[in-house]
Amino acid sequence: MRRISDYSAQMEKAVRDITLPGGVLSTLYEPISYALASGGKRLRPSLLLMAADSFGDSASKAFSAAAGIEVFHNFTLLHDDVMDNSSTRRGRQSVFAKWGVNSAILSGDTMLTLATQLICEVEDSLLRGVLDTFNSMAIRVYEGQRLDMDFETSEDVTLDDYIRMIMDKTGSLIGAACKIGALIGGASEKDAEKMYEYGMMLGVAFQIQDDWLDVFGDSTTFGKPIGGDINNNKKSYLVLKGKEVGGPDSVALAEAMKLPSGETKVKVVTRIYEKMNLSAICRQEIASYSAKAISALKSTSLSDEDKEAFRNVVEKLTGRKK
Amino acid sequence: MRRISDYSAQMEKAVRDITLPGGVLSTLYEPISYALASGGKRLRPSLLLMAADSFGDSASKAFSAAAGIEVFHNFTLLHDDVMDNSSTRRGRQSVFAKWGVNSAILSGDTMLTLATQLICEVEDSLLRGVLDTFNSMAIRVYEGQRLDMDFETSEDVTLDDYIRMIMDKTGSLIGAACKIGALIGGASEKDAEKMYEYGMMLGVAFQIQDDWLDVFGDSTTFGKPIGGDINNNKKSYLVLKGKEVGGPDSVALAEAMKLPSGETKVKVVTRIYEKMNLSAICRQEIASYSAKAISALKSTSLSDEDKEAFRNVVEKLTGRKK
Repeated sequence: MRRISDYSAQMEKAVRDITLPGGVLSTLYEPISYALASGGKRLRPSLLLMAADSFGDSASKAFSAAAGIEVFHNFTLLHDDVMDNSSTRRGRQSVFAKWGVNSAILSGDTMLTLATQLICEVEDSLLRGVLDTFNSMAIRVYEGQRLDMDFETSEDVTLDDYIRMIMDKTGSLIGAACKIGALIGGASEKDAEKMYEYGMMLGVAFQIQDDWLDVFGDSTTFGKPIGGDINNNKKSYLVLKGKEVGGPDSVALAEAMKLPSGETKVKVVTRIYEKMNLSAICRQEIASYSAKAISALKSTSLSDEDKEAFRNVVEKLTGRKK
Repeated sequence: MRRISDYSAQMEKAVRDITLPGGVLSTLYEPISYALASGGKRLRPSLLLMAADSFGDSASKAFSAAAGIEVFHNFTLLHDDVMDNSSTRRGRQSVFAKWGVNSAILSGDTMLTLATQLICEVEDSLLRGVLDTFNSMAIRVYEGQRLDMDFETSEDVTLDDYIRMIMDKTGSLIGAACKIGALIGGASEKDAEKMYEYGMMLGVAFQIQDDWLDVFGDSTTFGKPIGGDINNNKKSYLVLKGKEVGGPDSVALAEAMKLPSGETKVKVVTRIYEKMNLSAICRQEIASYSAKAISALKSTSLSDEDKEAFRNVVEKLTGRKK
């Protein structure tokens, strides 16, 4: 059976093989090489390749588009790190911290156009459909990032707002990767749309899982310090759900969120989350979006074995194994 | 005869007619509307429309692509203003100054994708050719901006480096506008390339003219304070040419450039430029690139009247009328 990890390994090599100009322009291209060499899961391009193979044994025709999706993803990280003032990324200095704001902006812009060029390498008959999917996705990602930033200074954010934001910011990119792979594999428009929905729902489940891990995860495997969202007053699934429930626990949570950042705040808030049973509620929500992803998958014309392969991705990303 | 000013008026309306989402996403789209409503010459899209009309009476088919070129141009201004720390643009606050760095970055990113979407509205048979021209141009513009930034801290910049930089940063966009218009008008590949060269050379002449106006222009029509390049130690055509000439005047110029910013510095440097006859040398260079633009134009299959219309643009932009 196909395994996402096989595609991740192929993508890792494909991304490292991207050659960029050097010489006098190394100030533009070195930050790009650095960003692309920083690893990460290569989840999005791997899903694209697996979709291309599943619908038409076409992974070999999909490498450029897969690389385009990965370059796009990394472009958003370069600019997000400036906007969020983040100095680290995947355990190393961010491009913003290492080369400054101007390099992060301009090398990021270059990556967006490079990504578009890679996407354009599909064959003529697919060009418009693939590009439309890519461009619409990009707009949704910017809209999601804008909402995410606006949420920081808003007290009126609801759970619905939050779900919309992560659908835009996270879901749309994973959805577009799956859809583009399907299109390159020769999928019907209906199947391609179902694969978009699969990726979208997987992305939402994955993002809520990330919020859960931020509180209840294991710091050695999570890759970030536990409690970061609490200390940064981030509008996470947990804090918004805790607010929505109402009653004295919600009031206590709102008060606890006003504590100064630090270990005490993380402990107090976590204790309230536990009292409100938010860990289990959150895991139910992850399971619900995972089920939606699998339901979309079931309605495609993929073989049972290929469906199983994509179902395994959902379980791997949202399952018990952290 | 066709006149560029007729197309500018049409573009002004077309750009103002672009409708963008509002509501909760006004934080993303309001800076874009603001930037697009700030006027400017609309030179690039007007050239695109005039080329489409000249080769095939196709301006009506070229409006989206023309709008795409204008949105792209304004995207570069949003990001350039962050990188150059510029608080004003066309006599108003820059987006960066009005809404901050994050808005300028993210609304700029959105404009780049919107521009690509507008470019994609050409008919299927033209899609790949037009997109390739657009994407390659975008990469050159980023490379030019990178070189321009790197020049600020380099003492080794030559006139050749400078010409390369303005070809990338300014020439390529005007060249691509002319080429895309020609392609939409049904021009042959050879004619489209010649129109690219016309626009490229026009762009170089135009940029050197801008450097000349910065010293010898009239502040009421130039739109910027005279002597800005001198006070900002910008590597302009004049200062690089003055350095290249060598001899005691070059030494005096290098010394004068070390003076503190202010009226005295502008006066002293201007006097040395005059002594070195740099105004006339600079005007010769503008004339030389204008001649190259017109030479490219002559080798196209356009009618004499259409050639005349494009020649008038060169004369209007680089001629005696400031």
